Order: sequence, then C-alpha cells, then structure tokens
Amino acid sequence: MPVVTVIGDGQLARMMQTAAIEMGQSVRLLAGSPAASAAQVAADVVIGDYTDLAALETAAEGADVVTFDHEHVPARHLRALIDAGVNVQPGPDALVHAQDKLVMRERLRDLGAPVPPFAAIGSVDDATDFFDEVDGRVCLKARRGGYDGKGVWFPGTREELIRLVTELLGRGIPLMAEKKVRLDRELSAMVARTPSGCCATWPVVESVQTSGVCTEAVAPAPDLPPRLAEQAEKLAVEIAAELGVTGVFAVEIFLTHADGDDEARILVNELAMRPHNTGHWTQDGSRTSQFEQHIRAVLDLPLGSPDPVGGTTVMANVLGADEDPGQSMHARMIEVWNRFPDAKIHMYGKDWRPGRKIGHVNLVAGPGHDGDVPELRRRARLAAHYLVHATWADGWISD
Amino acid sequence: MPVVTVIGDGQLARMMQTAAIEMGQSVRLLAGSPAASAAQVAADVVIGDYTDLAALETAAEGADVVTFDHEHVPARHLRALIDAGVNVQPGPDALVHAQDKLVMRERLRDLGAPVPPFAAIGSVDDATDFFDEVDGRVCLKARRGGYDGKGVWFPGTREELIRLVTELLGRGIPLMAEKKVRLDRELSAMVARTPSGCCATWPVVESVQTSGVCTEAVAPAPDLPPRLAEQAEKLAVEIAAELGVTGVFAVEIFLTHADGDDEARILVNELAMRPHNTGHWTQDGSRTSQFEQHIRAVLDLPLGSPDPVGGTTVMANVLGADEDPGQSMHARMIEVWNRFPDAKIHMYGKDWRPGRKIGHVNLVAGPGHDGDVPELRRRARLAAHYLVHATWADGWISD
Repeated sequence: MPVVTVIGDGQLARMMQTAAIEMGQSVRLLAGSPAASAAQVAADVVIGDYTDLAALETAAEGADVVTFDHEHVPARHLRALIDAGVNVQPGPDALVHAQDKLVMRERLRDLGAPVPPFAAIGSVDDATDFFDEVDGRVCLKARRGGYDGKGVWFPGTREELIRLVTELLGRGIPLMAEKKVRLDRELSAMVARTPSGCCATWPVVESVQTSGVCTEAVAPAPDLPPRLAEQAEKLAVEIAAELGVTGVFAVEIFLTHADGDDEARILVNELAMRPHNTGHWTQDGSRTSQFEQHIRAVLDLPLGSPDPVGGTTVMANVLGADEDPGQSMHARMIEVWNRFPDAKIHMYGKDWRPGRKIGHVNLVAGPGHDGDVPELRRRARLAAHYLVHATWADGWISD
Repeated sequence: MPVVTVIGDGQLARMMQTAAIEMGQSVRLLAGSPAASAAQVAADVVIGDYTDLAALETAAEGADVVTFDHEHVPARHLRALIDAGVNVQPGPDALVHAQDKLVMRERLRDLGAPVPPFAAIGSVDDATDFFDEVDGRVCLKARRGGYDGKGVWFPGTREELIRLVTELLGRGIPLMAEKKVRLDRELSAMVARTPSGCCATWPVVESVQTSGVCTEAVAPAPDLPPRLAEQAEKLAVEIAAELGVTGVFAVEIFLTHADGDDEARILVNELAMRPHNTGHWTQDGSRTSQFEQHIRAVLDLPLGSPDPVGGTTVMANVLGADEDPGQSMHARMIEVWNRFPDAKIHMYGKDWRPGRKIGHVNLVAGPGHDGDVPELRRRARLAAHYLVHATWADGWISD
C-alpha cells in the first residue's frame, strides 16, 4: 500500500486518516505536536515544523506522495522536495494561487474567470485610488495567511482605509483590495482532480458565513438555478485544470446582483487546495467523502463517485463558545443524540477555545424527507448550537 | 472524551478506530503485535497477549470501558478485571454464550428460542445415540474456539463419526452435536444494546457462506417474508436482553423447511457478541455503522439511527486467494475503481494468506436502482473476485 504523507495536524488531516484506514492505509503526518488533532489518532507521526525543510524531508522520506491539510508550506521548500524527487500534490505552482490572493486574482482575471474588481495595494495612493474607483466599497485583504475572516477588513471611510493601509504596510503585510460585493449568498464548488487530469465534482453547496467563518453548508445549494450550478461546477473544473490543481479543490463563490442587473451571477471569492469546510457534508452525504477523494486524487487513483446518498445534507459547524458552558462535550453529545438519533457528530479532539472549529454535525435527509430542507437546517443548527452552548436554542426539554 | 479499550487487533478493532476518530476519540488497543491490522492505525497501543491478565490490566487502566473484537478472552480474567472495578462490556456472563456452543444451545432452548436438536457429546456412545436420533444427519462441533467453518465437521457415516469423536475427545476437545439442517438460506439479525437496555436493530441480512466462511451479505435480505424478518429481529432483541448482551450482537440464523413443513422457519445457528462480518454493509449502507454503534453501545450512549441510507446494500468479502495473483493489491483496487466508481473498498492492512479475510467491498443501490438487487450482487461479486484473483470473472476488458 502506498504511503501518503500529510503536512499538517488539524482536523482535515485527522479526517484523511479516517478515510485512509478504510482504504488499507494509514497516513504519515508531519505534526507540530503529538497532542494535535490528527496526531492523536495516527500511528505514524513525525513531529516537526512545516516551515523547517529538514522536518519536511524526514516526513517525505519514502512516501509515495506528500500532500497538505493547509496551504502554508513555503513554496521554496516544496521546490526543494520536488528537486529531491518527492511527489508533491498539489505542487507549488498551483498552491501559490491559494497562498497569495493577489496572484490568484490576477491569474483568474487573465483566465477570464468572473472576479470582483481588485487592485494591488502597495501604497496609500493605491488604496485611495481604488477607494474612488469603487465608490468606497472596499474590502482590504492581506495577500497571504488569512483564513476564517482573519486578514480581511471592511474600512467604512476613506480615513479608516488610509489608517489601516498605513498601519498594515508599515508592519510589512502585503495587501490587495477588492470591491465589496453585494452578496445574495455564498456558494462553494468543489472538485477533485488527479495528476492525470481526471475530475469529479460534487453538487454545488450553499455556505453560510458568520463573522467570516463558515457555520453551515447545505448540499446541494437550495433553489440554485441549474444554469448557475452548472456554471459554478464548470468554473471549478476549468480553474483546477488551468492552475494544475491536484487533490480536492474548493472554489468559494459569491452569488451576487451587480448594480442594475436583474439576474444573479457568480464571482470567485477564494480558492482552497485541500479538503474544505464546505465539503464536510460529503462524509455522510456522498458516496465518496472529500477526504477519501483527496487521498485517491493525490495518489492518481481513479476517483470515487461523488453522487449524493440522500436528498439534501446539512452540515453545521461546532465552534468554541465565548464562555465554556461547563457541561462536558461528552454529555452534550449524549443530549444531542437523545434528541436526534440521526445526527452524525464529528469531533476533532481539540481543546475548547472561543471561535475555534472543534467539530461539526451532518444531517442527511431520509427517504421521503428530501423536500423539507428548512426543517433539516433547523435541526442541524439546533444540534450544533447545543454542542456549542449546552442549551437548546428552542427551549426544548427532554421527556 | 471517554477512553474505550478494545481487546484485539484485527479488522473489527481497526474499523472501530475509524468510527472512534470521527466521534472525537481514539480507541486504546491490546494488540498482539504493532504490525496487526488495528495496531497499524492507532496511536494508543498496548502490546500484549489477551490471555495474560497483567496485559489486560495494563490496557484497561483508566479506560471508561473495555470491549472486544473477538470472544476469546478467558472469563476468569474478565471477572478479575470486573472485581478490580473495570467496566467490561459485554460481560463474561453474556460472553460465555458466544464462547461455548453447548452452553449457548442449552440456554436458548431454555428460553424457548428455536434451535436445532442438539446433544452434549462426552463419549462415543453419546455420539452414536445422537446419530440414531437424527437419522445420521449429524453436525459435530467443537464447543469452543471455532470460527469461519473451523471446528465444525459433517461426518458422512456412523463410522466416520465414531472415528472423529474418538480422535477429538482424545485430544481433549469438548464437543457437541446438532442435527444438520436442510438449509434454504442463511440470515443474520443484528442489534446493538446498551447497558441501560436500549436496543437498535438493523434490517435482517441474507448472508452467503462458502465453505463455512461468509462471502457475501445483502441488506435487507431479499424477498424475506415480513413475518420472518420481524421474528428474526424480535428474537435478536429478546436474546440480547435475556443474556444481558451489550454492544453489537449478531444472531446467525438458518432459514429452513423442517421435514413435511410447507412454511419456512428460522433456527438460531450461532451468536456473536461484537461487530460481525454480516454487518460490514452498515459502513456505507446505514446511517450508523456497526462500529460506531458498538462504541456508543458499550459506552451506554444513545444509539444512532440504524436506518438504511439507500435501498439495498451488498457486501462482498475479499479473501486471500489460494495462489498470490502477483498484481499488487493497490493495482487491483485501481482496476476495480476504474470499472465501478461507486465500489467502496475497505482493506484491513493484512498480509495475504489463502482464505484470510483481508478486505471487503460495499455497493449501495443508488436512487432508482433499488429494484435491481441481482445486478448489485453481480457487481459486488465481480469487484471482490477481482480484488482476490486480479481477473474479471466475466472476462471484462477495459477500453
């Protein structure tokens, strides 16, 4: 059996391990600590830092492929691994588009993909020019390192923008800006692609963001016009091919009405080159989970069927509450299962911290219940809310 | 999160680990070797022998519950653990009915459960008396330790029976005999039961045995009269309650026509107190897999929904071929996935040996294909056959 090395130790690596076990493998991890989410559940763990080339080399030794649960490994290290004969999937030339938002925007614009108006911000003048160009509707972003709403700012005034840009550039943070989009809702188009160029797409998902963090995903996206679903899927496949992405690839999409437009249209927001939060529903709702598919894809194996197993699947994230609700997570799981025997609870073995992603819940519509998506969403939200707060948001009391 | 110690290192423990990871846990194993199927994929492994009380004590230390992937741990050791305050599920008083076929038969007869005529065989006279009683239709069994067709004999003549019994008793093997059943087909009724007495049953499965080894399971059992399905499910729940079984429990059942009977009836064949080969279909075909359910049950957690996710699911075992077909298992998996993208292949990380269970394949009927069970079985058999022999049984050649 091939050896897959995963650089990273978070929940994505942890769930890759689940998938790998069933395929007869066990991933090898490069983990920061033996207590990390994925390191807790893997037998083959190299402890080290992913910015340390020597650690990467140790983890890569003898592996059939090296892949990632995040996009933060320095490109120069990946090139050094490749030069030494290591099979790195996805490669640094693809990954840069998930690492640097400006490079991504420029490349997508060149490909003709729909993106919001944007500009490189190297000075305060760049920023004020762009502010005028988009009538003050500015979204300022760190080019690198942002995630889950971090590294994104929405300055309300010209003065605030100037202050922000001055401060951030002064701290050496490379910036870009784009036009703040009038958002109808957010979508996610996910595809897996092999080094041989085979692709498999899951149905396009609606994702709900709260304070910049994904809190819910509904698959397939309810009431999405087939025209837009097709367009989004096709776009993901085309971008994957153009950028040479391998493994699981998520295109975060804005569904928007441009000024004066009657029809909704889609704009690319972000790219992720790894399993993605909006794909967690596939663990219980698709024939092939994104974690199994990622491993198959980076190993250049035939891809699994991405067909849904039921009608709609709803995923709700479990984020650490602002205050620890006291009741143990184990007791919270019991309460949720008592009320919802079909709730699939996935926990990451992570300590509680406010806002931290520590688990998720999937609910799959049973036969005959496909139509009642609002009820499915309500139940998923209630379950996740209980796991976070140890209270029922609807005041439910068990018999 | 609670700690579940699993005594055993085979594929059942391995698949419990998969389920445990997703629930935020990682099982602790008592494994015979670090290379064993489950030990390859677990971070918390105690190496030791399950017949050694000291090893059992080490593995049990601090665990919330101790459970098993086989029934061979000596009852006296389990009693010693319990006396020391360890929570053992299922307990030795239940387990003895999966350890000793004579004790099981006697207990089931006392409970009024349908069993074939049987007798304790302590001497050649016992054997010949029973031979006469059942008109020579004798199935001779070792009371303990048999599995997968081992420890079961079908003597064709009185002389062969005498020879067998003399030899086996001479080797100190305790024996029993039962009447050889005219078999229509074999079923399996599976239930999970918690220490609190909650039960959840999966649909009754048809299992296909080849040379005493399970090779296929179809869930739900095709064309099973609802009367018999209900009776089998009820029987499993009743036996579980009467014997105090906890965790996943399988009742292997003969569907038979007694002499002169028009109607089929069911007879209990064997009991298994752990996840069971005929329940592997639940990994892809049920809302809750038997491995997740086992962990939830032994921890006395609320049980998950046992509802099927599709119509029919077919499981086909991958057994080691008589001769190694040369092609790597990895290459075989590629071939199967190329032909059947919806084949869910589960491999155990075990070395090849003739007849050894090294993996299984699940195929779930997609929407609209529920009626075509023969086609689903054909595909599952073809996939498993390829994984065993590296040839397509139907001569298929890829494009």
